[in-house]
Amino acid sequence: MSVFKQLDELSVFVEAKMKKNNIFTTERMFCDVYCFEPGQRQDAHAHADSDKVYVVLEGTPKISVGDDEHEVAEGGAVLAPAGEPHGVSNEAKTRARVLVFMAPKP
Amino acid sequence: MSVFKQLDELSVFVEAKMKKNNIFTTERMFCDVYCFEPGQRQDAHAHADSDKVYVVLEGTPKISVGDDEHEVAEGGAVLAPAGEPHGVSNEAKTRARVLVFMAPKP
Repeated sequence: MSVFKQLDELSVFVEAKMKKNNIFTTERMFCDVYCFEPGQRQDAHAHADSDKVYVVLEGTPKISVGDDEHEVAEGGAVLAPAGEPHGVSNEAKTRARVLVFMAPKP
Repeated sequence: MSVFKQLDELSVFVEAKMKKNNIFTTERMFCDVYCFEPGQRQDAHAHADSDKVYVVLEGTPKISVGDDEHEVAEGGAVLAPAGEPHGVSNEAKTRARVLVFMAPKP
């Protein structure tokens, strides 16, 4: 596996549902780019023992953590601590790409 | 601690040396933005038990992992697996900002 990658080249969208594109995986963590067409979403869910960080690369998706939800623009970063429900909803008219980092790998 | 942050607002540069700006820290990982003025660097070093991911937000820093070194543009992502020496050198004439994830927190 090359340790040098380009996120743009690995950002694949699909019509059926939001697409998770893996960038790196180790025993300790993973790093993905999630791609959302307009209207696509990741339903709220929680990981008991893993923390997740979202960083918006493109678009203006709504991101929720617990009862808190905000539209997040490029350069916005969001922490979903272990145990907290979190999700993403792209209600905008443009595509959204979100960098995701999770540790430890669930 | 708010779990919603803006990376731009937290990107502080200092003249003395490259600046590490913490975004999130948990028991399991941390997320920083490293800010490099032209000529600033992070010397190569290794973490025995933690993986690091660099994602370039701005600029064209050179990033090394082991014997491999590349100039990396915005949207480039680099994995420094546990035990591999890695570093960053901003030899460009423009500022560089690099998102950093590390897990587990050393």
